[in-house]
Amino acid sequence: MTEYFKQVSAEIVTVGTELLLGHLIDTNSAYLGQKLAEIGINVYFKSSVGDNDDRLLQVLKQAADRADIVVITGGLGPTVDDITKNAVVKLLNRKLILNERILEKLRAFFSARNITMAQNNVSQALVPSGAVIIENNNGTAPGLRLQNENGKVFILMPGVPREMKLMTEESVLPFLKETFRLEETIRSRTLKCFGLGESTVDEKINDLFTHSTNPTIALLASHTEVMIRLTSKAKSVEAAAEAIGRVETEILRRLGENIFAADEGSMERTVAGLLTAAKLQLSVAESCTGGLIANKLTDIPGASKFLKLGIVCYSNDSKEELLKVPATALTKYGAVSSQVAEEMALGVKKLSGTALGLAVTGIAGPGGETAGKPVGLVYIALSTPAGMQFKECRFNGDRVKIKEQSAQTALDMLRRYLLASQTR
Amino acid sequence: MTEYFKQVSAEIVTVGTELLLGHLIDTNSAYLGQKLAEIGINVYFKSSVGDNDDRLLQVLKQAADRADIVVITGGLGPTVDDITKNAVVKLLNRKLILNERILEKLRAFFSARNITMAQNNVSQALVPSGAVIIENNNGTAPGLRLQNENGKVFILMPGVPREMKLMTEESVLPFLKETFRLEETIRSRTLKCFGLGESTVDEKINDLFTHSTNPTIALLASHTEVMIRLTSKAKSVEAAAEAIGRVETEILRRLGENIFAADEGSMERTVAGLLTAAKLQLSVAESCTGGLIANKLTDIPGASKFLKLGIVCYSNDSKEELLKVPATALTKYGAVSSQVAEEMALGVKKLSGTALGLAVTGIAGPGGETAGKPVGLVYIALSTPAGMQFKECRFNGDRVKIKEQSAQTALDMLRRYLLASQTR
Repeated sequence: MTEYFKQVSAEIVTVGTELLLGHLIDTNSAYLGQKLAEIGINVYFKSSVGDNDDRLLQVLKQAADRADIVVITGGLGPTVDDITKNAVVKLLNRKLILNERILEKLRAFFSARNITMAQNNVSQALVPSGAVIIENNNGTAPGLRLQNENGKVFILMPGVPREMKLMTEESVLPFLKETFRLEETIRSRTLKCFGLGESTVDEKINDLFTHSTNPTIALLASHTEVMIRLTSKAKSVEAAAEAIGRVETEILRRLGENIFAADEGSMERTVAGLLTAAKLQLSVAESCTGGLIANKLTDIPGASKFLKLGIVCYSNDSKEELLKVPATALTKYGAVSSQVAEEMALGVKKLSGTALGLAVTGIAGPGGETAGKPVGLVYIALSTPAGMQFKECRFNGDRVKIKEQSAQTALDMLRRYLLASQTR
Repeated sequence: MTEYFKQVSAEIVTVGTELLLGHLIDTNSAYLGQKLAEIGINVYFKSSVGDNDDRLLQVLKQAADRADIVVITGGLGPTVDDITKNAVVKLLNRKLILNERILEKLRAFFSARNITMAQNNVSQALVPSGAVIIENNNGTAPGLRLQNENGKVFILMPGVPREMKLMTEESVLPFLKETFRLEETIRSRTLKCFGLGESTVDEKINDLFTHSTNPTIALLASHTEVMIRLTSKAKSVEAAAEAIGRVETEILRRLGENIFAADEGSMERTVAGLLTAAKLQLSVAESCTGGLIANKLTDIPGASKFLKLGIVCYSNDSKEELLKVPATALTKYGAVSSQVAEEMALGVKKLSGTALGLAVTGIAGPGGETAGKPVGLVYIALSTPAGMQFKECRFNGDRVKIKEQSAQTALDMLRRYLLASQTR
């Protein structure tokens, strides 16, 4: 049996007309794909289908033909007509039976909230004969698990991500691992790089792509980072980690401090860690980023330890009055200039009495450009106990993209300063 | 022909192993679903398949059987092996021919950037016989359009959203409208509501759901808004707009100023519009929101007109020194109190000399709670020429969710003040 099931495959089916109309972005199937891959299950196809009995039945039939496991989300809630349950009952030739325990649980749920239970909630207590119930500890619609005569497994879960995820973690994955005696595991790790373009990263590690099949390596670039994803399939978590670790070490050797984070890490999380470790306090003066840097840093728990003050100084007035940027600098060089960026960094540092002052001024657009100063021109300055650093940047994209690139570049400048001072 | 094509259907196929592994969330198919629906094309199935020739061919064959139009994104870039082009060539029995014009364009693209063109870029200039090229004005890989002997249309586009979207707008939609003589149109409008829970909204407009089939009405709630989506299918844009307008008027009558925006509108955009119209300037003092309010407002072009100053005052020091919050208020009531929120609003207003001062202080967590002050407790104060308003809130969720709810509630308080002063 272990031999037979060595390559276990699953197909993911998401149900809902909202998905086809694009009113809802399907994040469930990405989550499920990732979780199934992690326990060594291959997903070759994913499909979405609307709230239509015939078409859902057609998709389920095909999925059961092609895969060992069919995971279905959606079409189970109280506001839909239980379309998924009906289709599975039809496909597997089962009957719907009222489950008293679920009905009792539903009644208790509603009475605890002083709500009269609607009639359509009763249908949630109907269970196909032979189905195993998957408890839903985050909502009312329970999940279901069925097997057909060929051992094909059907997993039905509601489409609400919070409910579906808990059921997957607590019940579905343990069941699949046990049933299919899964011995292979897939692990992946994402290294995040800033300061090198995608093609430069590609050039520097291209040979690793060609030679490494375990882990495989993939590149993915956005306007604020290049992601390098290492994916390993192995007999154990340890073996996968070892394979990834080997290539990761080599990539880190080649790309050095351009790698700013891994996996769920982010630029602001890394900077927060470095500031905390160095016991340094920061203040920020933001013109074109408009609070984005402070907002990113305060997303990190414990930000009050390292972020003392943020100033969003959109007007020249506030630059002058609060940050003491000399009026002459503003008139002579303009608000978007390295001189003003440096004065802002110095000003906010002095105002708050922190060791570090970070400042950004630029033109996020649309409009606002002047002769020689196009939209996307951004100056970043960092005032430190060791002196002043500044950077001139030219970014592309819309207002929000320019803000994001400016914030990322400013935080990266701070990160590199903190790294360098660690080794001093 | 018009009659025959009355119900035109399309199938969306997204290509990429990253999609199946869940490393990438498929936003392309949601976008395409929406755009196709808008011109009256029905999408009944969506599928995703990995970078595998046989499986892609299988999916394309089935899609062409079921639908009039197959729209494929992904598998066209320079870093993939042109898997999509090869599959379509195989399915439609075509040949790949080198297109000199595309090759020239590619060479020009790279030489303008002083980059040597890699050999795998040449494959982007290979075009299936009989295919029409869809220009890519945002990238290097061109799109392709083919028709088989039964008039089925195949649209191939790269997976990069920015490139795919421009091609869809500029080329694909106009072509489909013309070719299929589309006479029905689907329009939808989303009304965004704040200040009423989902169940209250449901209660107030439930009867409209039951009685209206054109437009249909759907509710979708998140932690910062309840969305009401009206969707109308009609013979003309005007007829659809009329049907939507009728129901919209009734919903606005019932929900009043709880509706803060529609469609692409947002709370910050509405507030920006009201501030600009009233020619009022605002300054913001943010503790637990950490710059999120300023960041949201500065996402709106022209923010410099109405936002004069933002202060992110995470420390008691900065609240005292900069905003002149009395030390006695901080010790007597604590930094998270209505008294301190009011002092902050007043302080930032005075500091910047604006008409309006908005302040938020609260506990975003995790940690930081004290006796009687749990995580999620947030005070918001608005200082206006007409006096002071304040609000005590208790939010649920993680740090980021609490920040988002706080910012949305603060902006909504400002919005309602501005609306009320319009009518005074």
